[in-house]
Amino acid sequence: MLRAVARGARVPLAAQNVLLTRRVAIHEHDAFADRHIGPSRLEKQAMLDFIGFKNLDHLTSTNVPKQIRFEKDLDLPAPVDEFTMIRELKAIAEKNEVWRSYIGMGYYGTITPAVIQRNIMENIGWISQYTPYQAEISQGRLESLLNYQTMVAELTGLPNTNASLLDESTAVAEAVALAARSTKRNKVLLDPHLHPQNKDLIKTRSDPLGISTDTLDFTNLSLDKDVAALVIQYPNTEGKIEVLDELIAKVHENKSLVILVTDLLALTIMRSPGDLGADIAVGSAQRFGVPLGYGGPHAAFMAVGKTDARNTLSRMMPGRIVGVSKGANGERALRLALQTREQHIRRDKATSNICTAQALLANMAAMYAVYHGPTRLAEIARTVHKSTAWLAQQIKANNGTLAFKDYFDTLKVINCDVAAIRKRAEEKGINLRYYDDSSVGVALDETTKFADLNDLRYVFTGLPLISEAEVFEQMSADASPLIGNSVHARTSLYLEHPIFNSHHSEQQLVRYMKRLENKDVSLVHSMIPLGSCTMKLNASSELQPVTWEKFGNIHPFAPITQTKGYQQVFSDLNKWLCEITGYDNFSLQPNSGANGEYAGLLAIRNYLIHKGEPQRNVCLIPTSAHGTNPASAQMANMRVVVVESDRHGNIDYKDLAAKAEKYSKELAAIMVTYPSTHGVFESSIRDVCDKVHENGGQVYLDGANLNAQVGLCRPGDYGSDVSHLNLHKTFCIPHGGGGPGVGPIGVKSHLAPFLPGHPVIPVDSTGKNNSAVAAAPWGSASILPITWAYIRMMGPHGLKKASQIAILNANYMAKRLEAGGYRVVYKDEQGLVAHELIIDCKPFKKAAGIEVVDVAKRLMDYGFHSPTMSWPVHDCLMIEPTESEDKGEMDRLVDSLLAIREEIGMIERGELDKLNNPLKNAPHTLPVVLSDGWDRPYKRELAAFPKPWCYHKLWPSVGRVDDQYGDRNLVCTCPPIEAYQ
Amino acid sequence: MLRAVARGARVPLAAQNVLLTRRVAIHEHDAFADRHIGPSRLEKQAMLDFIGFKNLDHLTSTNVPKQIRFEKDLDLPAPVDEFTMIRELKAIAEKNEVWRSYIGMGYYGTITPAVIQRNIMENIGWISQYTPYQAEISQGRLESLLNYQTMVAELTGLPNTNASLLDESTAVAEAVALAARSTKRNKVLLDPHLHPQNKDLIKTRSDPLGISTDTLDFTNLSLDKDVAALVIQYPNTEGKIEVLDELIAKVHENKSLVILVTDLLALTIMRSPGDLGADIAVGSAQRFGVPLGYGGPHAAFMAVGKTDARNTLSRMMPGRIVGVSKGANGERALRLALQTREQHIRRDKATSNICTAQALLANMAAMYAVYHGPTRLAEIARTVHKSTAWLAQQIKANNGTLAFKDYFDTLKVINCDVAAIRKRAEEKGINLRYYDDSSVGVALDETTKFADLNDLRYVFTGLPLISEAEVFEQMSADASPLIGNSVHARTSLYLEHPIFNSHHSEQQLVRYMKRLENKDVSLVHSMIPLGSCTMKLNASSELQPVTWEKFGNIHPFAPITQTKGYQQVFSDLNKWLCEITGYDNFSLQPNSGANGEYAGLLAIRNYLIHKGEPQRNVCLIPTSAHGTNPASAQMANMRVVVVESDRHGNIDYKDLAAKAEKYSKELAAIMVTYPSTHGVFESSIRDVCDKVHENGGQVYLDGANLNAQVGLCRPGDYGSDVSHLNLHKTFCIPHGGGGPGVGPIGVKSHLAPFLPGHPVIPVDSTGKNNSAVAAAPWGSASILPITWAYIRMMGPHGLKKASQIAILNANYMAKRLEAGGYRVVYKDEQGLVAHELIIDCKPFKKAAGIEVVDVAKRLMDYGFHSPTMSWPVHDCLMIEPTESEDKGEMDRLVDSLLAIREEIGMIERGELDKLNNPLKNAPHTLPVVLSDGWDRPYKRELAAFPKPWCYHKLWPSVGRVDDQYGDRNLVCTCPPIEAYQ
Repeated sequence: MLRAVARGARVPLAAQNVLLTRRVAIHEHDAFADRHIGPSRLEKQAMLDFIGFKNLDHLTSTNVPKQIRFEKDLDLPAPVDEFTMIRELKAIAEKNEVWRSYIGMGYYGTITPAVIQRNIMENIGWISQYTPYQAEISQGRLESLLNYQTMVAELTGLPNTNASLLDESTAVAEAVALAARSTKRNKVLLDPHLHPQNKDLIKTRSDPLGISTDTLDFTNLSLDKDVAALVIQYPNTEGKIEVLDELIAKVHENKSLVILVTDLLALTIMRSPGDLGADIAVGSAQRFGVPLGYGGPHAAFMAVGKTDARNTLSRMMPGRIVGVSKGANGERALRLALQTREQHIRRDKATSNICTAQALLANMAAMYAVYHGPTRLAEIARTVHKSTAWLAQQIKANNGTLAFKDYFDTLKVINCDVAAIRKRAEEKGINLRYYDDSSVGVALDETTKFADLNDLRYVFTGLPLISEAEVFEQMSADASPLIGNSVHARTSLYLEHPIFNSHHSEQQLVRYMKRLENKDVSLVHSMIPLGSCTMKLNASSELQPVTWEKFGNIHPFAPITQTKGYQQVFSDLNKWLCEITGYDNFSLQPNSGANGEYAGLLAIRNYLIHKGEPQRNVCLIPTSAHGTNPASAQMANMRVVVVESDRHGNIDYKDLAAKAEKYSKELAAIMVTYPSTHGVFESSIRDVCDKVHENGGQVYLDGANLNAQVGLCRPGDYGSDVSHLNLHKTFCIPHGGGGPGVGPIGVKSHLAPFLPGHPVIPVDSTGKNNSAVAAAPWGSASILPITWAYIRMMGPHGLKKASQIAILNANYMAKRLEAGGYRVVYKDEQGLVAHELIIDCKPFKKAAGIEVVDVAKRLMDYGFHSPTMSWPVHDCLMIEPTESEDKGEMDRLVDSLLAIREEIGMIERGELDKLNNPLKNAPHTLPVVLSDGWDRPYKRELAAFPKPWCYHKLWPSVGRVDDQYGDRNLVCTCPPIEAYQ
Repeated sequence: MLRAVARGARVPLAAQNVLLTRRVAIHEHDAFADRHIGPSRLEKQAMLDFIGFKNLDHLTSTNVPKQIRFEKDLDLPAPVDEFTMIRELKAIAEKNEVWRSYIGMGYYGTITPAVIQRNIMENIGWISQYTPYQAEISQGRLESLLNYQTMVAELTGLPNTNASLLDESTAVAEAVALAARSTKRNKVLLDPHLHPQNKDLIKTRSDPLGISTDTLDFTNLSLDKDVAALVIQYPNTEGKIEVLDELIAKVHENKSLVILVTDLLALTIMRSPGDLGADIAVGSAQRFGVPLGYGGPHAAFMAVGKTDARNTLSRMMPGRIVGVSKGANGERALRLALQTREQHIRRDKATSNICTAQALLANMAAMYAVYHGPTRLAEIARTVHKSTAWLAQQIKANNGTLAFKDYFDTLKVINCDVAAIRKRAEEKGINLRYYDDSSVGVALDETTKFADLNDLRYVFTGLPLISEAEVFEQMSADASPLIGNSVHARTSLYLEHPIFNSHHSEQQLVRYMKRLENKDVSLVHSMIPLGSCTMKLNASSELQPVTWEKFGNIHPFAPITQTKGYQQVFSDLNKWLCEITGYDNFSLQPNSGANGEYAGLLAIRNYLIHKGEPQRNVCLIPTSAHGTNPASAQMANMRVVVVESDRHGNIDYKDLAAKAEKYSKELAAIMVTYPSTHGVFESSIRDVCDKVHENGGQVYLDGANLNAQVGLCRPGDYGSDVSHLNLHKTFCIPHGGGGPGVGPIGVKSHLAPFLPGHPVIPVDSTGKNNSAVAAAPWGSASILPITWAYIRMMGPHGLKKASQIAILNANYMAKRLEAGGYRVVYKDEQGLVAHELIIDCKPFKKAAGIEVVDVAKRLMDYGFHSPTMSWPVHDCLMIEPTESEDKGEMDRLVDSLLAIREEIGMIERGELDKLNNPLKNAPHTLPVVLSDGWDRPYKRELAAFPKPWCYHKLWPSVGRVDDQYGDRNLVCTCPPIEAYQ
């Protein structure tokens, strides 16, 4: 077949002509799989030869256990090329109708500055970065995330913030959990005018934790010593701004906390939570330039005040926090702070299971603030507010009645002729919020221009259109409740830092964004070989649809009749993911892997309760599990019982059997990752599932490693009941430098009735009365087309081949590294690894005083991002090449590791100093290797250019970061400008 | 006004509230002008204070001469913000209808790989680069352009190529001029089946040069000693492939040349011009991944063989040529070769006036070849060809008649029922080529998929649709004329170089493109202060529309009824540009500034002929003119007479008057740049115009410096008859690393009847019978929306302010540099410069042995691109900051120049060595400053980090390039792979 010679091979034309006489499918040269998969045909064969296998099937039928092997072809549509996929998806997108949505409820129209859209949102240099664990080659986005934290801290008036949460509703739930944990109380009072999805999430998340809720009565406040916190939407879901000073004082007397769910744009002109004395503020940064996207992804925020001397809230806060520390050369350096709070360290003791957050979207929002600065931001807010005031006046002047007089951007019109208003709105292609009680809500935003205001006036009053000049005249004369001497008007200053006052022209902003981008390693530079965190190709054709208006500009609560395109994407994905996994149904709502885990465990919990077995609450978790597993189990009110591993790294089946039996009355579930987090296809998996089922438990199979299974075996076939998939790993959604993630869950049919529902938009036939796990009905809907595109273009054989090449690549690297003196820690009975491998760095400690972190940092000098460090096995590196990396790139990484091994050898032999050597001093920055004062006992060129490809490497921008220093001297907002020089 | 404090200033909220009580226009914070213009309000005031002016009007009413000042507001629409502009332009774009176009004639559907679209075409890092004159910081795109040359050389089989020409038709005309010049003969024989626009361009360009044309008779070849060349379209415009071997042999016997106008895709499977023994090949690389864009921009190519020992064709070839040379450290280094051929050196002795070419589009085409490699390219071609063969068979099998049997992708169906075919085609939304003689043409391309073939079968036969499987079956069984033992089938190999066989997966290609991007300085890094080559902001919102399908996917010869959106853009631009310049009419066709000059001079020439004054052929040109001026004059058959400058750099009015009078019978025109190329508003401009008019001449005002005039004065008001505008400078179309350019011409009404026409699509009411100056009716149509967007968003006051700030910025820099020891060479009577300034580096030669080039290269070490070097004044630098640069960036450049001045001082004082110093050794590459063998008498840190911002500078990737070495050892295709390490 001609296709066989399409990649890499150069076949003489004569031979090509012979090939041509055979039957050739048209357009085979367009096969997307060949563009997604890194190795050429020749490279593939060379690697197979090296590891001693005939072909890919020979390899994978050797290491995928026979008893679980999927022997058929996946029943998926035949693949199409990129051009055809784009055509098809565009036709689907065209089925969505983009109406003007003034629904509000936490989602608002926004203007994404084109400069941010192009240079961050559509720029693979920003979107294919990994979470910034390797701080020295992540200073760009760490600075941007610090800007985000500073922006949130200053706008909310609360000093301690994090680097984003998943969405406003999960942030509210996190805040409630934080309040309960920090006050050691178990009751919260809820503003009756919270957004419904916020209320729903509190319910979802509080019930299992034993936190009860009650309704907050503003006029008749009743507090008792169980009350951990009040949760107030500010302004509330109907648009009203309550006067809160007295209330907050009373609450504090009771030693309860006040959680305000708020709006960053409003806070530019409205008193901040800090001004009011609130303790915790949460909300969404969506309207700072992040498209609606039918619900996400967007960044949520949390900010906390200092309620006690120990700064308890801050120390317990969930999520990633960027903090300032210093590098080995004394330079300012940023890194993730206080990581000991997080699930990967504290496991079931962590406050939250949050792992991936929304870094990319937080960066967009931060850049929006950097670009506009405090003055333009306040002007945007005032314009929105004055427009709202004008509309209010028009409605009142024409016999309409408003529910309240203090508002920012949202009005509620009561006792009105809803049918007439709705008719006019639909005529104009406008979505409003229709309450159940003859009221209509309308929320304006920065996209609301003259013509829109005019249309809204017509919708609410029925009066004919007037000239823009008239609108302008009337607006200028209007008085607006938040402007002037209002009790709500903000007087405190914010965003005075030079970062927010220096990049207001596009040229300035582009250069700032590019300077940050060029400090960070992403997939555009080199492979990011992170075991367990697949960093495969994010293809441009997959990413293009995300910013199409027909996907981007739709409110999550728009009538479902307007979103037929999205519904088709969801239904295709549901069908395809079921086929790939062997499950019966999917929920696309969970907007991260950890959130998927939680949703899956909740389905199990509710299934068991429904079945009359509420006592079942033991969750078996192997020692090697991701930290999110026990943290999620804890949140679902499960008790974690650890299962041991044997010396091959496999689940110790005997221990498992014993514990399953021991807890047979209480067994709820097992959480198991497959292939194991040790990178091995365990042959016992089916037995494990059977044993758990025998004892009345359900099997939760963590889908983190599904990329080794697609087309080869299916969790739903070999005994699992539920899994989350990491679409941002296996299915090509980019990591975004630390989010977004997407973690849909698949279930067998008995669990389907317990999938997440949604309080505003019914998500499907099965889960309509269930509560939600995320703010939006379909979570991060706008990036689901990425996965759709990937599956559509790979087709059944392409997907399977991707799994096989991922396995081939890992085994090739394993064998080369073994030959060069590294021990591969875990292999299966056949001596193979799955799609990743763990190499042992422990011996270097004794022999040469070299820690695994020294190897990781030294790799930066070679131009590489470190593999996963000390997880799941301490003092080891876990390497995952993925199918997208070609042999040349893998050889460069192997050569680098072998060269480092040789450097360690030199230390062992005394040829390099034991303390002052290139590994201990790694990474080397430019100012260090260029210094006139260089006095190290090794050469500069060895430090800087140990291999030829290092001449075009990305340089670490700071020396090795001192984590302890930063945690001892916690600074989580922008330091003075001098520090940036 | 609130707006006044929008930028930079931080106003306390109390003061803001006061401001709010005033009338404030809504959405002022969205003002695009504030995002386009660099300096904040405070910076603007600081600079005005520094140079001693009250405000902008005070400044510009001082230096723009009173007698030419435009005292009104430009009558342009009030500006809109980015969001509204995008909405408006989208509505306009929607008026275009995207039909499937199988028209052919040199333009074909193509699949732009998404990875190339995102990472080159939509990536400001690639598109805002300047022409690679500063080779050391341009190695990335020089490598890509070398790939382009290699691709063209190998596909055409002719070894010497250039780095692109404007379009196929101008390339044909250039080839004819080259043939005539090299053979010293003055007649060409034209294939009657050239594309009509090619034929037209030959006529346009040959007439003034005295080259006559005759029709080539293939069956009865008649040659005489005047015949310079035959020009043959291969395959021809109807699709036929002629057998040429014998013909070419005969032509060579007559010592005439053979020019083949050809198609790169066809050449992957069809015998190459080199295989056939042709001498020159030209054509378009459009179908290598560059969107149709209603005609452009696309890259054209030229390749020549070695016809004699002196390699005459190669030495005389027009356009930029990238060649291999070496850097100061012996490394491989690329740079523009053989520049002495070009107009900026040879002026009216040059073969062509070409200056800006199509670098960005050439890079896209080259990457398309790098991505696909020889095998995929050939498969694409075979698929197109087999699809065509299938369609041919379907037509024949259903009683259709084809005009010929040897074709690649284009058929001509003769004696058919055109009306019925046309009806079915229109029903399907398909454009075909309708000949005048009851024939219909159809040309397929790589976008033609199964469903399209099925539709085409229906269109030509009226038969109902059949299943895709049937199409597939039939196609597989078909025999195709170019496959197998055809006399036309290619057997020679091509693109065997590793560059074309190593980047076939997207991950590989992305990394390759990013590696090249990161070697090159662009506007994302720092200002590019090129006097006379405005490098202002290219805003993202201006660029977004370019890749909208409704602009991108339209064939230039689509019926005009389908292009109403484009027509509106053209008509708005015509109106707006007339208002800005004071002219009466515009032609948007010229696709570069030089092409605009030529079109303008041609209009003058034809006007004079029409007036009965054909003897008028003297063109007065000041000494300081751009080299394109005399080169264009020569091409328009004018005789250049040089006018002297006075010691202020102004036109020597006395000399001008004397020469105008001396040649009053022969005077055709003066070409003058305003403000002068010396960067000064000359007060005599009106007198100059009058004097020329008095003596019967026309005034051609070179629009290169229009950016200093917009809103301040208008050429059409003060006496000019015609100008070209550089939209790629003044009006924000990016430079693309050396093109595209766009050079529309504006004329007073008497010249309007002599504007370019077009042979296929009538371009407007005035010039319909005139011949064309470019291949497409509206030249590079798809990038005109950039200029539309800029004018729409800036509005009359924004445009004027941009001119004023450009002038302020230049005067600020001039004054700071003067204070630091640089002499500003030319100023006006008030001591001011216009929008650019010239500083004198001559004194450094004597005092310290430092040449201007040393200063230029040393600036790279400071992180800056050099200003224009030694033009228009030898041993000087010409600096143009533009309005988009803020004070901080200008201060950094000034500080760098002052620091360099101090380094020169150290040489003068003997503190630095006279030969071995940071200037002579500049630029310093990383391997040099990092070398363990560093032995220079100055410090590494002085070399590398002379200023704090240098820590994040872009490093030169090679040492100073040896131009002479490369010209002596000319290599213009990819060297062996080892050289890339």
